[in-house]
Amino acid sequence: MKLVIIGAQGTIGKKVSNLLSSEGHEIIQVGKKSGDYQADLAEPETLKTLFQKIGRFDSLAIAAGEVAFAPLEELTLEQWQDSFQNKLLGQIQAVQKALPYIRDGGSFTLIGGSLSNDPIKAGTAASTVNRALEGFVISASCDLPRGLRINLVSPTVLEESVKTYGNFFPGVIPVAGDRVAQAYKKSILGCQTGQIYFVT
Amino acid sequence: MKLVIIGAQGTIGKKVSNLLSSEGHEIIQVGKKSGDYQADLAEPETLKTLFQKIGRFDSLAIAAGEVAFAPLEELTLEQWQDSFQNKLLGQIQAVQKALPYIRDGGSFTLIGGSLSNDPIKAGTAASTVNRALEGFVISASCDLPRGLRINLVSPTVLEESVKTYGNFFPGVIPVAGDRVAQAYKKSILGCQTGQIYFVT
Repeated sequence: MKLVIIGAQGTIGKKVSNLLSSEGHEIIQVGKKSGDYQADLAEPETLKTLFQKIGRFDSLAIAAGEVAFAPLEELTLEQWQDSFQNKLLGQIQAVQKALPYIRDGGSFTLIGGSLSNDPIKAGTAASTVNRALEGFVISASCDLPRGLRINLVSPTVLEESVKTYGNFFPGVIPVAGDRVAQAYKKSILGCQTGQIYFVT
Repeated sequence: MKLVIIGAQGTIGKKVSNLLSSEGHEIIQVGKKSGDYQADLAEPETLKTLFQKIGRFDSLAIAAGEVAFAPLEELTLEQWQDSFQNKLLGQIQAVQKALPYIRDGGSFTLIGGSLSNDPIKAGTAASTVNRALEGFVISASCDLPRGLRINLVSPTVLEESVKTYGNFFPGVIPVAGDRVAQAYKKSILGCQTGQIYFVT
Protein backbone atom coordinates (compact mmCIF):
# COMPACT_ATOMS: atom_id res chain seq x y z
CA MET A 1 0.00 0.00 0.00
CA LYS A 2 1.17 3.52 -0.80
CA LEU A 3 0.53 5.66 2.28
CA VAL A 4 0.90 9.45 2.44
CA ILE A 5 1.61 10.83 5.93
CA ILE A 6 1.30 14.57 6.54
CA GLY A 7 3.25 15.45 9.67
CA ALA A 8 5.49 12.44 9.21
CA GLN A 9 8.32 13.94 11.29
CA GLY A 10 6.21 14.62 14.39
CA THR A 11 6.04 12.35 17.42
CA ILE A 12 2.96 10.51 16.17
CA GLY A 13 3.86 10.72 12.49
CA LYS A 14 7.19 8.96 13.08
CA LYS A 15 5.49 6.15 15.01
CA VAL A 16 2.90 5.63 12.26
CA SER A 17 5.58 5.82 9.61
CA ASN A 18 7.77 3.21 11.35
CA LEU A 19 4.86 0.90 12.15
CA LEU A 20 3.50 0.79 8.62
CA SER A 21 6.84 0.76 6.81
CA SER A 22 7.98 -2.17 9.00
CA GLU A 23 5.08 -4.11 7.49
CA GLY A 24 6.22 -3.42 3.95
CA HIS A 25 4.04 -0.46 3.03
CA GLU A 26 5.43 2.39 0.98
CA ILE A 27 5.44 5.63 2.98
CA ILE A 28 5.40 9.09 1.41
CA GLN A 29 6.51 11.49 4.12
CA VAL A 30 5.16 15.04 4.04
CA GLY A 31 6.23 17.87 6.34
CA LYS A 32 6.14 21.63 6.41
CA LYS A 33 9.90 21.71 5.79
CA SER A 34 11.00 18.07 5.96
CA GLY A 35 10.10 14.79 4.27
CA ASP A 36 9.74 13.67 0.66
CA TYR A 37 7.32 16.51 -0.10
CA GLN A 38 6.48 19.78 1.62
CA ALA A 39 3.02 21.18 2.33
CA ASP A 40 1.41 23.40 4.94
CA LEU A 41 -2.09 22.67 6.29
CA ALA A 42 -2.62 26.42 6.68
CA GLU A 43 -2.12 26.96 2.94
CA PRO A 44 -4.63 25.00 0.83
CA GLU A 45 -2.77 25.69 -2.41
CA THR A 46 0.24 23.74 -1.12
CA LEU A 47 -2.07 20.76 -0.52
CA LYS A 48 -3.41 20.92 -4.06
CA THR A 49 0.14 20.97 -5.45
CA LEU A 50 1.17 18.17 -3.08
CA PHE A 51 -1.32 15.67 -4.46
CA GLN A 52 -0.66 16.70 -8.04
CA LYS A 53 3.00 15.81 -7.45
CA ILE A 54 2.37 12.54 -5.57
CA GLY A 55 -0.22 11.20 -8.00
CA ARG A 56 -2.10 7.99 -7.25
CA PHE A 57 -1.94 6.58 -3.72
CA ASP A 58 -3.98 4.39 -1.36
CA SER A 59 -4.25 6.09 2.02
CA LEU A 60 -3.74 9.48 3.60
CA ALA A 61 -2.90 9.85 7.29
CA ILE A 62 -2.52 13.24 8.93
CA ALA A 63 -0.67 13.78 12.19
CA ALA A 64 -0.29 17.56 12.13
CA GLY A 65 -2.26 20.69 12.91
CA GLU A 66 -1.97 23.69 15.18
CA VAL A 67 -4.47 25.45 17.43
CA ALA A 68 -4.16 28.44 19.74
CA PHE A 69 -4.20 28.06 23.52
CA ALA A 70 -5.40 31.03 25.58
CA PRO A 71 -8.12 31.82 28.13
CA LEU A 72 -11.47 32.41 26.41
CA GLU A 73 -11.47 36.06 27.45
CA GLU A 74 -8.17 36.61 25.65
CA LEU A 75 -8.62 34.51 22.49
CA THR A 76 -8.58 36.91 19.55
CA LEU A 77 -10.57 36.67 16.34
CA GLU A 78 -7.29 36.05 14.53
CA GLN A 79 -6.37 33.18 16.86
CA TRP A 80 -9.76 31.58 16.23
CA GLN A 81 -9.43 31.99 12.47
CA ASP A 82 -5.86 30.64 12.47
CA SER A 83 -6.95 27.61 14.50
CA PHE A 84 -9.82 26.90 12.11
CA GLN A 85 -7.61 27.45 9.07
CA ASN A 86 -4.85 25.14 10.27
CA LYS A 87 -5.88 21.97 12.11
CA LEU A 88 -9.55 22.03 11.02
CA LEU A 89 -9.83 23.39 7.50
CA GLY A 90 -6.29 22.22 6.70
CA GLN A 91 -7.25 18.59 7.26
CA ILE A 92 -10.61 19.04 5.51
CA GLN A 93 -8.92 20.60 2.50
CA ALA A 94 -6.32 17.83 2.45
CA VAL A 95 -9.15 15.30 2.13
CA GLN A 96 -10.87 17.31 -0.58
CA LYS A 97 -7.69 17.97 -2.58
CA ALA A 98 -6.70 14.29 -2.30
CA LEU A 99 -10.00 12.97 -3.66
CA PRO A 100 -8.98 12.97 -7.35
CA TYR A 101 -5.85 10.95 -6.55
CA ILE A 102 -6.78 8.43 -3.85
CA ARG A 103 -7.58 4.94 -5.15
CA ASP A 104 -10.98 3.22 -4.77
CA GLY A 105 -11.40 1.78 -1.28
CA GLY A 106 -8.64 3.97 0.15
CA SER A 107 -8.76 5.63 3.53
CA PHE A 108 -8.32 8.98 5.22
CA THR A 109 -7.15 9.13 8.85
CA LEU A 110 -7.31 12.52 10.55
CA ILE A 111 -6.15 13.69 13.96
CA GLY A 112 -8.35 15.24 16.63
CA GLY A 113 -7.78 15.12 20.36
CA SER A 114 -9.48 14.26 23.62
CA LEU A 115 -10.05 17.90 24.57
CA SER A 116 -13.17 17.52 22.42
CA ASN A 117 -14.94 16.01 25.41
CA ASP A 118 -12.44 16.38 28.26
CA PRO A 119 -11.65 20.11 28.34
CA ILE A 120 -8.84 21.93 30.12
CA LYS A 121 -8.44 25.58 31.03
CA ALA A 122 -7.46 27.79 28.08
CA GLY A 123 -8.18 24.94 25.68
CA THR A 124 -11.40 26.29 24.16
CA ALA A 125 -10.06 26.59 20.62
CA ALA A 126 -8.61 23.08 20.77
CA SER A 127 -11.86 21.61 22.11
CA THR A 128 -13.82 23.40 19.39
CA VAL A 129 -11.53 22.30 16.57
CA ASN A 130 -11.12 18.71 17.79
CA ARG A 131 -14.85 18.26 18.16
CA ALA A 132 -15.47 19.86 14.76
CA LEU A 133 -13.21 17.21 13.25
CA GLU A 134 -15.38 14.50 14.84
CA GLY A 135 -18.42 16.00 13.10
CA PHE A 136 -16.54 16.21 9.84
CA VAL A 137 -15.43 12.58 9.89
CA ILE A 138 -18.84 11.24 10.93
CA SER A 139 -20.60 13.12 8.16
CA ALA A 140 -17.92 12.85 5.48
CA SER A 141 -18.24 9.07 5.74
CA CYS A 142 -21.78 9.50 4.32
CA ASP A 143 -20.59 11.54 1.36
CA LEU A 144 -17.36 9.84 0.27
CA PRO A 145 -17.55 8.00 -3.07
CA ARG A 146 -15.89 4.80 -4.35
CA GLY A 147 -15.77 2.93 -1.03
CA LEU A 148 -13.40 5.49 0.47
CA ARG A 149 -13.23 5.40 4.27
CA ILE A 150 -12.49 8.13 6.83
CA ASN A 151 -11.76 7.95 10.57
CA LEU A 152 -10.45 10.21 13.30
CA VAL A 153 -7.75 9.38 15.84
CA SER A 154 -8.37 11.32 19.04
CA PRO A 155 -5.53 10.89 21.53
CA THR A 156 -5.10 12.41 24.97
CA VAL A 157 -1.75 13.98 25.91
CA LEU A 158 1.19 11.79 24.89
CA GLU A 159 3.70 10.27 27.31
CA GLU A 160 6.33 11.74 24.98
CA SER A 161 4.90 15.27 25.49
CA VAL A 162 4.12 15.13 29.19
CA LYS A 163 7.27 16.99 30.25
CA THR A 164 6.26 19.94 28.09
CA TYR A 165 2.48 19.95 28.38
CA GLY A 166 1.67 17.73 31.38
CA ASN A 167 0.93 20.61 33.77
CA PHE A 168 -1.92 21.76 31.55
CA PHE A 169 -3.62 18.35 31.94
CA PRO A 170 -4.11 17.82 35.68
CA GLY A 171 -5.18 14.27 36.48
CA VAL A 172 -5.03 13.18 32.86
CA ILE A 173 -3.17 9.89 32.37
CA PRO A 174 -0.93 10.23 29.30
CA VAL A 175 -0.86 7.64 26.56
CA ALA A 176 2.12 6.14 24.74
CA GLY A 177 2.63 7.23 21.14
CA ASP A 178 2.80 3.56 20.17
CA ARG A 179 -0.84 3.12 21.17
CA VAL A 180 -1.84 6.10 19.03
CA ALA A 181 -0.01 4.58 16.07
CA GLN A 182 -2.08 1.41 16.50
CA ALA A 183 -5.26 3.48 16.11
CA TYR A 184 -3.91 4.80 12.81
CA LYS A 185 -3.14 1.23 11.77
CA LYS A 186 -6.71 0.18 12.59
CA SER A 187 -8.05 3.02 10.49
CA ILE A 188 -5.67 2.46 7.57
CA LEU A 189 -5.70 -1.33 7.32
CA GLY A 190 -9.12 -2.05 8.87
CA CYS A 191 -12.60 -1.88 7.44
CA GLN A 192 -14.30 0.81 9.53
CA THR A 193 -15.45 4.27 8.47
CA GLY A 194 -16.95 7.29 10.21
CA GLN A 195 -15.36 6.23 13.49
CA ILE A 196 -13.62 8.20 16.23
CA TYR A 197 -10.80 6.30 17.92
CA PHE A 198 -10.29 7.79 21.36
CA VAL A 199 -6.84 6.77 22.58
CA THR A 200 -6.82 7.39 26.31
CA MET B 1 -34.45 39.11 33.86
CA LYS B 2 -33.20 41.03 30.85
CA LEU B 3 -32.73 38.53 28.00
CA VAL B 4 -31.09 39.29 24.66
CA ILE B 5 -32.20 37.01 21.81
CA ILE B 6 -30.23 37.02 18.56
CA GLY B 7 -32.42 35.59 15.81
CA ALA B 8 -35.57 36.60 17.66
CA GLN B 9 -37.71 36.63 14.52
CA GLY B 10 -36.87 33.09 13.43
CA THR B 11 -39.05 30.05 14.14
CA ILE B 12 -37.18 29.13 17.31
CA GLY B 13 -36.40 32.72 18.34
CA LYS B 14 -40.10 33.64 18.33
CA LYS B 15 -40.97 30.63 20.50
CA VAL B 16 -38.26 31.46 23.02
CA SER B 17 -39.24 35.12 22.99
CA ASN B 18 -42.93 34.34 23.62
CA LEU B 19 -42.20 31.72 26.28
CA LEU B 20 -39.91 33.92 28.34
CA SER B 21 -41.84 37.17 27.89
CA SER B 22 -45.04 35.41 29.00
CA GLU B 23 -43.29 34.80 32.30
CA GLY B 24 -42.50 38.47 32.78
CA HIS B 25 -38.94 38.61 31.50
CA GLU B 26 -37.73 41.56 29.46
CA ILE B 27 -36.78 40.51 25.93
CA ILE B 28 -34.35 42.42 23.72
CA GLN B 29 -34.95 41.19 20.19
CA VAL B 30 -32.02 41.20 17.77
CA GLY B 31 -32.22 40.37 14.07
CA LYS B 32 -30.21 40.95 10.93
CA LYS B 33 -32.81 43.44 9.74
CA SER B 34 -35.63 43.23 12.30
CA GLY B 35 -36.03 43.56 16.06
CA ASP B 36 -35.01 46.17 18.63
CA TYR B 37 -31.39 46.05 17.47
CA GLN B 38 -29.67 44.77 14.35
CA ALA B 39 -26.55 42.63 14.16
CA ASP B 40 -25.11 40.00 11.84
CA LEU B 41 -23.31 36.92 13.15
CA ALA B 42 -21.08 37.00 10.08
CA GLU B 43 -19.79 40.47 11.00
CA PRO B 44 -18.10 40.55 14.42
CA GLU B 45 -17.99 44.34 14.51
CA THR B 46 -21.80 44.51 14.49
CA LEU B 47 -21.81 42.26 17.57
CA LYS B 48 -19.40 44.53 19.40
CA THR B 49 -21.58 47.55 18.63
CA LEU B 50 -24.71 45.61 19.60
CA PHE B 51 -23.59 44.99 23.17
CA GLN B 52 -22.24 48.51 23.54
CA LYS B 53 -25.73 49.77 22.70
CA ILE B 54 -27.65 47.28 24.86
CA GLY B 55 -25.47 47.71 27.93
CA ARG B 56 -25.99 45.48 31.01
CA PHE B 57 -28.15 42.40 30.66
CA ASP B 58 -28.59 38.95 32.23
CA SER B 59 -28.75 36.32 29.53
CA LEU B 60 -27.95 35.89 25.86
CA ALA B 61 -29.76 33.34 23.72
CA ILE B 62 -28.88 32.78 20.07
CA ALA B 63 -31.22 31.13 17.57
CA ALA B 64 -29.50 32.07 14.32
CA GLY B 65 -26.64 30.96 12.13
CA GLU B 66 -26.13 29.76 8.59
CA VAL B 67 -24.11 26.90 7.12
CA ALA B 68 -23.63 25.69 3.56
CA PHE B 69 -25.20 22.45 2.32
CA ALA B 70 -23.47 20.65 -0.56
CA PRO B 71 -21.91 17.26 -1.28
CA LEU B 72 -18.40 17.03 0.19
CA GLU B 73 -16.86 16.83 -3.29
CA GLU B 74 -18.45 20.17 -4.21
CA LEU B 75 -18.05 22.18 -0.99
CA THR B 76 -15.73 25.08 -1.79
CA LEU B 77 -13.15 26.67 0.48
CA GLU B 78 -15.33 29.78 0.54
CA GLN B 79 -18.40 27.79 1.63
CA TRP B 80 -16.40 26.25 4.47
CA GLN B 81 -15.05 29.63 5.55
CA ASP B 82 -18.50 31.25 5.37
CA SER B 83 -20.00 28.44 7.44
CA PHE B 84 -17.30 28.80 10.08
CA GLN B 85 -17.57 32.58 10.07
CA ASN B 86 -21.35 32.60 10.47
CA LYS B 87 -22.89 29.96 12.74
CA LEU B 88 -19.65 28.95 14.49
CA LEU B 89 -17.43 31.98 14.93
CA GLY B 90 -20.45 34.29 14.93
CA GLN B 91 -21.83 32.66 18.07
CA ILE B 92 -18.37 32.44 19.66
CA GLN B 93 -17.74 36.10 18.99
CA ALA B 94 -21.16 37.02 20.35
CA VAL B 95 -20.21 35.32 23.63
CA GLN B 96 -16.84 37.06 23.72
CA LYS B 97 -18.19 40.51 22.83
CA ALA B 98 -20.99 40.12 25.41
CA LEU B 99 -18.64 39.28 28.28
CA PRO B 100 -18.05 42.88 29.44
CA TYR B 101 -21.82 43.49 29.65
CA ILE B 102 -23.41 40.30 30.97
CA ARG B 103 -24.14 40.31 34.71
CA ASP B 104 -22.58 37.88 37.21
CA GLY B 105 -24.31 34.51 37.12
CA GLY B 106 -25.80 35.17 33.69
CA SER B 107 -26.09 32.61 30.95
CA PHE B 108 -25.29 32.03 27.30
CA THR B 109 -27.45 29.67 25.24
CA LEU B 110 -26.19 28.79 21.77
CA ILE B 111 -27.71 26.77 18.96
CA GLY B 112 -26.19 23.68 17.38
CA GLY B 113 -28.07 20.86 15.70
CA SER B 114 -28.42 17.09 15.70
CA LEU B 115 -26.42 16.68 12.49
CA SER B 116 -23.44 16.76 14.85
CA ASN B 117 -23.97 13.05 15.52
CA ASP B 118 -26.75 12.07 13.11
CA PRO B 119 -25.42 13.09 9.67
CA ILE B 120 -27.29 13.42 6.39
CA LYS B 121 -26.01 13.53 2.83
CA ALA B 122 -24.52 16.91 1.84
CA GLY B 123 -24.56 18.01 5.49
CA THR B 124 -20.83 17.83 6.18
CA ALA B 125 -20.40 21.54 6.91
CA ALA B 126 -23.41 21.52 9.23
CA SER B 127 -22.17 18.44 11.09
CA THR B 128 -18.73 20.00 11.45
CA VAL B 129 -20.03 23.36 12.70
CA ASN B 130 -22.67 21.89 15.02
CA ARG B 131 -20.19 19.54 16.62
CA ALA B 132 -17.62 22.33 16.93
CA LEU B 133 -20.19 24.29 18.93
CA GLU B 134 -20.52 21.35 21.33
CA GLY B 135 -16.77 21.46 21.93
CA PHE B 136 -16.89 25.20 22.40
CA VAL B 137 -19.66 25.08 24.99
CA ILE B 138 -18.15 22.18 26.93
CA SER B 139 -14.78 23.90 27.17
CA ALA B 140 -15.99 27.50 27.53
CA SER B 141 -17.81 26.42 30.68
CA CYS B 142 -14.35 25.81 32.21
CA ASP B 143 -13.12 29.28 31.31
CA LEU B 144 -16.08 31.56 31.97
CA PRO B 145 -15.65 33.91 34.96
CA ARG B 146 -18.14 35.24 37.54
CA GLY B 147 -20.45 32.23 37.67
CA LEU B 148 -21.46 32.67 34.05
CA ARG B 149 -23.04 29.60 32.48
CA ILE B 150 -23.13 28.36 28.89
CA ASN B 151 -25.16 25.61 27.21
CA LEU B 152 -25.99 24.42 23.71
CA VAL B 153 -29.44 23.58 22.35
CA SER B 154 -29.11 20.95 19.64
CA PRO B 155 -32.44 20.28 17.90
CA THR B 156 -33.25 17.94 15.06
CA VAL B 157 -35.33 19.20 12.12
CA LEU B 158 -38.37 21.19 13.28
CA GLU B 159 -41.98 20.22 12.59
CA GLU B 160 -42.37 23.79 11.37
CA SER B 161 -39.61 23.27 8.77
CA VAL B 162 -40.45 19.76 7.64
CA LYS B 163 -42.28 20.87 4.49
CA THR B 164 -39.16 22.68 3.30
CA TYR B 165 -36.36 20.44 4.58
CA GLY B 166 -38.01 17.13 5.46
CA ASN B 167 -36.83 15.28 2.36
CA PHE B 168 -33.21 15.83 3.37
CA PHE B 169 -33.81 13.99 6.67
CA PRO B 170 -35.11 10.52 5.72
CA GLY B 171 -36.46 8.67 8.74
CA VAL B 172 -35.81 11.53 11.12
CA ILE B 173 -38.78 12.33 13.36
CA PRO B 174 -39.17 16.11 13.51
CA VAL B 175 -39.56 17.97 16.80
CA ALA B 176 -41.97 20.78 17.69
CA GLY B 177 -40.47 24.24 18.09
CA ASP B 178 -42.17 24.46 21.50
CA ARG B 179 -39.97 21.63 22.79
CA VAL B 180 -36.86 23.43 21.55
CA ALA B 181 -37.98 26.57 23.39
CA GLN B 182 -38.21 24.56 26.61
CA ALA B 183 -34.53 23.58 26.22
CA TYR B 184 -33.67 27.28 25.99
CA LYS B 185 -35.75 27.89 29.13
CA LYS B 186 -33.86 25.16 30.98
CA SER B 187 -30.56 26.70 29.97
CA ILE B 188 -31.61 30.28 30.77
CA LEU B 189 -33.47 29.79 34.05
CA GLY B 190 -31.81 26.58 35.25
CA CYS B 191 -28.50 25.96 36.99
CA GLN B 192 -26.56 23.82 34.51
CA THR B 193 -23.49 24.72 32.49
CA GLY B 194 -21.38 23.06 29.82
CA GLN B 195 -24.37 20.96 28.75
CA ILE B 196 -25.70 19.96 25.34
CA TYR B 197 -29.47 19.68 25.18
CA PHE B 198 -30.35 17.38 22.32
CA VAL B 199 -33.98 17.99 21.39
CA THR B 200 -35.04 15.00 19.30
